[in-house]
Amino acid sequence: MESFFKLRKPDDVLKLLEGFGPCAEEEIPLGEAFNRVLSRPVVSPENLPGFSRSTMDGYAVRARDTFGATENLPAFFEITGEVSMGESPTEAIVQGQAVRISTGGMLPEGADGVVMVEYCHALDGETLEISRAISPLENVIQPGDDIGKHAQVLPEGHRLRPQDMGVLAGLGVAEIGVYRQPRIAIISTGDELVSLDMQPATGQVRDINRYSLGAFCLKAGAVPFFLGICPDDFETLATFVRKGLETADGVWISGGSSVGTRDLTLKVFETLDDFELMVHGISISPGKPTIIARSGSTPLVGLPGHVASALVVAEVFMGPLIARLSGLSGPGLSLGGSVMAKLSRNIESKGGREDYIRVRLHREGDALSAEPVFGKSGLISPLVEGQGMVRVDLNTEGLYQGDSVEVLLFDGGRT
Amino acid sequence: MESFFKLRKPDDVLKLLEGFGPCAEEEIPLGEAFNRVLSRPVVSPENLPGFSRSTMDGYAVRARDTFGATENLPAFFEITGEVSMGESPTEAIVQGQAVRISTGGMLPEGADGVVMVEYCHALDGETLEISRAISPLENVIQPGDDIGKHAQVLPEGHRLRPQDMGVLAGLGVAEIGVYRQPRIAIISTGDELVSLDMQPATGQVRDINRYSLGAFCLKAGAVPFFLGICPDDFETLATFVRKGLETADGVWISGGSSVGTRDLTLKVFETLDDFELMVHGISISPGKPTIIARSGSTPLVGLPGHVASALVVAEVFMGPLIARLSGLSGPGLSLGGSVMAKLSRNIESKGGREDYIRVRLHREGDALSAEPVFGKSGLISPLVEGQGMVRVDLNTEGLYQGDSVEVLLFDGGRT
Repeated sequence: MESFFKLRKPDDVLKLLEGFGPCAEEEIPLGEAFNRVLSRPVVSPENLPGFSRSTMDGYAVRARDTFGATENLPAFFEITGEVSMGESPTEAIVQGQAVRISTGGMLPEGADGVVMVEYCHALDGETLEISRAISPLENVIQPGDDIGKHAQVLPEGHRLRPQDMGVLAGLGVAEIGVYRQPRIAIISTGDELVSLDMQPATGQVRDINRYSLGAFCLKAGAVPFFLGICPDDFETLATFVRKGLETADGVWISGGSSVGTRDLTLKVFETLDDFELMVHGISISPGKPTIIARSGSTPLVGLPGHVASALVVAEVFMGPLIARLSGLSGPGLSLGGSVMAKLSRNIESKGGREDYIRVRLHREGDALSAEPVFGKSGLISPLVEGQGMVRVDLNTEGLYQGDSVEVLLFDGGRT
Repeated sequence: MESFFKLRKPDDVLKLLEGFGPCAEEEIPLGEAFNRVLSRPVVSPENLPGFSRSTMDGYAVRARDTFGATENLPAFFEITGEVSMGESPTEAIVQGQAVRISTGGMLPEGADGVVMVEYCHALDGETLEISRAISPLENVIQPGDDIGKHAQVLPEGHRLRPQDMGVLAGLGVAEIGVYRQPRIAIISTGDELVSLDMQPATGQVRDINRYSLGAFCLKAGAVPFFLGICPDDFETLATFVRKGLETADGVWISGGSSVGTRDLTLKVFETLDDFELMVHGISISPGKPTIIARSGSTPLVGLPGHVASALVVAEVFMGPLIARLSGLSGPGLSLGGSVMAKLSRNIESKGGREDYIRVRLHREGDALSAEPVFGKSGLISPLVEGQGMVRVDLNTEGLYQGDSVEVLLFDGGRT
């Protein structure tokens, strides 16, 4: 059997992963940039707004002409027209004049404030009564008030949200620099594996990890591509890995869990240029026999063959790895990926390793209760039960019923 | 001005939205089904596993032959071979025989248990010493133990996660029935709008909502398509809306915020077949002038023109609407989309409406602090600040510094 010469602690593994850097930059149209990560800060190319705009429906006036106006002693104005949306008003206003204006309309020359329509009463088409004084610039935003030319709007390493897309459109940023999405080559190994379109003979099983790990990549913002099912054979696996390295930003091999084939993955990795073995075994359960290495700057990963173990390693380590390859600045605030819940029964754990226990969540009044999902080793059905995992720390030997625990949600809360 | 004849309460609006149903079903390959919603329950077409498998590395034996074996009094076995992965063992074992087997290997006929390799000691190639008794079926899963034929594996209305993809692959589900992703037609209205590729003249602004609402649709699992910028003109808008209705599962119009054009959207909706006005104004800020209606079973939505207001309405109401159109069973447990934080300063609010206040989150020791992001009305720059929103209930007139508040995260926690 292989010797895990030095099991790494999970936190140390996460630190090592921080050494991986982002993929190359590319320039893409804004319309395709949702969820992509900025490769440089966005600096505003212009003043926003570009002209003085009203923030209310009402009348544009000279603010000083309203001074002293009250409900009992209103001020009177001459209505000289209306500002059409999208047009630059042609006539300036002078003392005692008012122009009807809508939210977003451009202030005419001479006006320096807008009285909200609620305080205006048009006596006829020409005369306006105003019952409230405004200060200069009230209900007005001036050029650059929102975003000044050359101001930094968004930092490098930021993933674009819907509101960011809106602000970039408002600034006229039609093309934007982002990091390429990491391409992950996925290889499933095992003499027992057949593809989904084949009927397994007795003793054979279908390849599962292609689908679960592929979907995990999509969830994390990477682009998976499947190289195929590889038999437990050194030369064939070496060919697969070299092919993956030609185009991928990361190569993930799952399997090799059978006695004697377990070190095949590592032996193949060792033949690659500029190779470094970073992690050979992690003190985590499930997921111990995980290999993390690099060839040049490209991460090479050997994942456990069982889908449940492979997905725990993906959630805990491959998510952060993809974040690094994506160029996400981090770690920053990690939010919303977890909830607190009360444990519904005891969980035993061996000290010296981190255990990840799948849990079902139940609402109990205002609180949540977390019920461990146990099952015989090797089953896949418990996978679809439960909404998250509870981590049992390296330094504890279990958790007690009633303990308040953090549940790491499988899907970032989109249950 | 338009009269909001009856402002609807936010909770009532959410209830009305539950009346919308899912899009049609379609059959797609499993490899494309991540994040899609099941249109029928998945029932297992076969037993999983299909044969008796070992869950450990070790030796397959007749369990009764190990009875009484201990470290001091081991039992001895004849090693008759090894089970190759992916193959059906050809030779049965009889009393006193053992066959080497790996995790996932198929049990030979006659064997009913596996002794873990830790308790086995091969004296030579032919003789095995076993130092621990096992019970029948120990370290073995039998046909159907994991998932029985005809068992329901996943319910209708479930969004497929990576682990679900894995289980479906394991069952050989190559094609799967899902609801079509809702297609949302997006129309931006306003005489002042120009498209991103044009330089706005003085008085004009770029269309923002196309990008922010389009990205919101993607985030929620819908497919946006943009019909174009429409001037504030009844006939033109009617043409746009009819075109949208031909192919879309929902039509969203943003804009019409200028005096006089505000009811244009509603007037156009009213010309459509089987029309019903469901909501005309919501007691929410920002977002009050929202229209929700239907033509037949297709939702029609009039959103505020300002991107900040439109996005609040999207987060609060359009997310749930897309969930209904997607066929998500719900509401179920809503998790992880929010965190608790302490308010860093007072927030005032008018009673009788729900206020949504954007907040920045800061880590303070173990807790989070929520700092309101205020800004003049009409600005878009505050949009990119902050990680979420705090809701101020209809029935309160504000929140106090130090209050513990729920922060609805903008991005489901993937900050």
